[in-house]
Amino acid sequence: MLTLNETHEAGLKSWVESANEHDCRFPIQNLPYAVYKPADGDDFRVGVAIGRQILDLRALAALQPFCGAALQALDACQGDSLNALMALSAEHWSALRLSLSRALRAGSAHQAKLQPLLSEHATALFSLPAQIGDYTDFYISLHHATAVGSLFRPDNPLLPNYKWVPIGYHGRASSINVSGSDFLRPLGQTRPLPDAPTPSFGPSQRLDYELELGIFVGSGNAQGRRIDMDEAESHVFGLCILNDWSARDLQAWEYQPLGPFLAKNFASTISPWVVTLEALAPFRVPFSRAADDPQPMPYLASEHNSAAGAIDIQLEVALSTRKSRAARHEPHVLARSNFKEAYWSIAQLITHHTVNGCNLRPGDLLGTGTLSGPAAGQEGSLLETTRGGKQCVSLPWGEDRYFLEDYDRVVMHAYCHKEGYPSIGFGDCAATVLPAG
Amino acid sequence: MLTLNETHEAGLKSWVESANEHDCRFPIQNLPYAVYKPADGDDFRVGVAIGRQILDLRALAALQPFCGAALQALDACQGDSLNALMALSAEHWSALRLSLSRALRAGSAHQAKLQPLLSEHATALFSLPAQIGDYTDFYISLHHATAVGSLFRPDNPLLPNYKWVPIGYHGRASSINVSGSDFLRPLGQTRPLPDAPTPSFGPSQRLDYELELGIFVGSGNAQGRRIDMDEAESHVFGLCILNDWSARDLQAWEYQPLGPFLAKNFASTISPWVVTLEALAPFRVPFSRAADDPQPMPYLASEHNSAAGAIDIQLEVALSTRKSRAARHEPHVLARSNFKEAYWSIAQLITHHTVNGCNLRPGDLLGTGTLSGPAAGQEGSLLETTRGGKQCVSLPWGEDRYFLEDYDRVVMHAYCHKEGYPSIGFGDCAATVLPAG
Repeated sequence: MLTLNETHEAGLKSWVESANEHDCRFPIQNLPYAVYKPADGDDFRVGVAIGRQILDLRALAALQPFCGAALQALDACQGDSLNALMALSAEHWSALRLSLSRALRAGSAHQAKLQPLLSEHATALFSLPAQIGDYTDFYISLHHATAVGSLFRPDNPLLPNYKWVPIGYHGRASSINVSGSDFLRPLGQTRPLPDAPTPSFGPSQRLDYELELGIFVGSGNAQGRRIDMDEAESHVFGLCILNDWSARDLQAWEYQPLGPFLAKNFASTISPWVVTLEALAPFRVPFSRAADDPQPMPYLASEHNSAAGAIDIQLEVALSTRKSRAARHEPHVLARSNFKEAYWSIAQLITHHTVNGCNLRPGDLLGTGTLSGPAAGQEGSLLETTRGGKQCVSLPWGEDRYFLEDYDRVVMHAYCHKEGYPSIGFGDCAATVLPAG
Repeated sequence: MLTLNETHEAGLKSWVESANEHDCRFPIQNLPYAVYKPADGDDFRVGVAIGRQILDLRALAALQPFCGAALQALDACQGDSLNALMALSAEHWSALRLSLSRALRAGSAHQAKLQPLLSEHATALFSLPAQIGDYTDFYISLHHATAVGSLFRPDNPLLPNYKWVPIGYHGRASSINVSGSDFLRPLGQTRPLPDAPTPSFGPSQRLDYELELGIFVGSGNAQGRRIDMDEAESHVFGLCILNDWSARDLQAWEYQPLGPFLAKNFASTISPWVVTLEALAPFRVPFSRAADDPQPMPYLASEHNSAAGAIDIQLEVALSTRKSRAARHEPHVLARSNFKEAYWSIAQLITHHTVNGCNLRPGDLLGTGTLSGPAAGQEGSLLETTRGGKQCVSLPWGEDRYFLEDYDRVVMHAYCHKEGYPSIGFGDCAATVLPAG
């Protein structure tokens, strides 16, 4: 999975001109997948992004342009979700990527055939890229865990298991939406006010975002068969952006002893584009632990993981409000962080999740948990930025926020950047909070 | 849903003779659904139990014997899961039940047509009755919460939210198996031993069962639309038995702060038969709270719930071991309890789950949590029976247990009994623990 090949060459150009522009997030080195409906289309289908265009893979499959594993993989793109493609193997995904890269490359003999299969990204509609069977959310930022722990448990912020166990819990699959799906502010119970005889009930007053990445499982495992570290990454199809909306007041009251429930399951939002692990290969970095942190237990360790288990992905969360949009202000960036600082790697999440025999299925989604950095301006949630709602955030257009208000719109971005290489972008992950219904 | 109708008449007899036997758990008043493959069949299909036989509803649908809503409901039984039937309405389920009851009744004109569609229950294979999109597990036995809480948190057994919030969390859908699917003992991390520098790793030493009921959601709700108490039961298709296997040593180490994860998601087992809520109507009982317990908050209260929100369902868990089976001993009953003692009702679980806008989908499964009673002999888990592994259970064939050992087989039963009415049974929920792989 780490091997760089011709699809990664920095100098590659596409015959789709917009893919070669300097600030394009979907150059030919990226080739992420989504499920979309073109402006003039009747239904949803699988596509691959190239510049400001989307190539219709269902229509391409009908032309039978490839052979071998690439053709098999393309044939799996004829439904309205990525699950069938995900269910194949890393070899299939890689073969399809190579064939698409060659077909979209400047000078390709396929250009005339493919040109009619392109449509505008800007006017497309998107659906969830996959049917998500199970959704697991992890908690892999030590900085987030420490910051949040100190708010929920001031005397005991980081629990003794944190540095040994990749802490995770099951989330709700049914309420995961694709970017652009707005949602209602949740109602719920909150802790009784001082001297009140009963809990309060009403719209959440402490609604928050969580800046995460989502990891789409590709080929799964049979129940009872664990996935070892050395093969873990070959089970991962790709990554998306994930906003794990959280109602902090509901969470504080309900989460003991079995974890968050209604505080999270009203809505989660993911970006439509799934960037494959192979596209991220040029951005792999060593995975290391601080000198005073324990080394991972043997079942969570591998040479490859130490050498290149982390990925340098920059993350960003921005806010717009009804007022800022009316005045045409740009969304205000609230925080920036980086996935490479996570305490656990993707391979460790896969291996830990299956070590007890739990089966993963194609299309399952693993959330990383909020990806906060250690410094100010790197907080992946308002809970952290505002120190539990105590310090307000001033927005440049004259409003301020402790938590999200109605009609606030949160937009997240992720991208990989390095000198001399085209940027790999993840697209947008955005949604607006509507008033409680 | 509470209305008794002609399908509930105690005196009804079927032309399927085995349904009229005194100890039959599938009399004509029951009519539960499953997905099964007859001994001579090629594939799985939907069936309804009658006595010691199963009626093939896919084959019945081909005969178009009913009309109106009953026909529509029967047409939804032509796939290999109950999801399409579940997605209809309580009116449809009721119409199908009435038509099946009339067709299977002694003297029915349909007898000759239906007779060839029957096959033996004893030789059938079963699959999961539905594709389970999301699985939520609740914690509705106050007795269980108190007993377990006192083991995990001796100083703080019952948390302040318990009597206000129906505590629940998301479980794993992928590893839910139908009765008869044996599974491997899970591996995992456990708390460091005293003076050990690192956690331990290996097969769970404290493997346990949890005696629960599963609630299958029928028609769901759109995201953002809550289901009020008055309509909650009309969204419930029926109930099954659920064994929520638990690795207590993994759980104790991993569960803070986000709840149980690998301690539960290696396997859960459900009975193949889904007993409809309508079949349980004769066993409804008032739902009440102890005088010193708070009344439910308004959104969790309704007149119907107070009058008849609970259901009198007897539960039983029994154990056999490799030794006991070799010596042909009957499984030893470890505990008996009753669903009617639960602190929260089915309607309250549905309403609470959706109050924040979370969407339920047809085929979603809600577990009740371990259904323990207050007295000795009513513990729904070994954790409770053995007081956290401190007092062993003596088995009549000369073995004893703190937790489950390899090749132990746990079988759960549930049934409704009352004077002058045929017993309504749920079938078996059974599986065997195999050695860690």
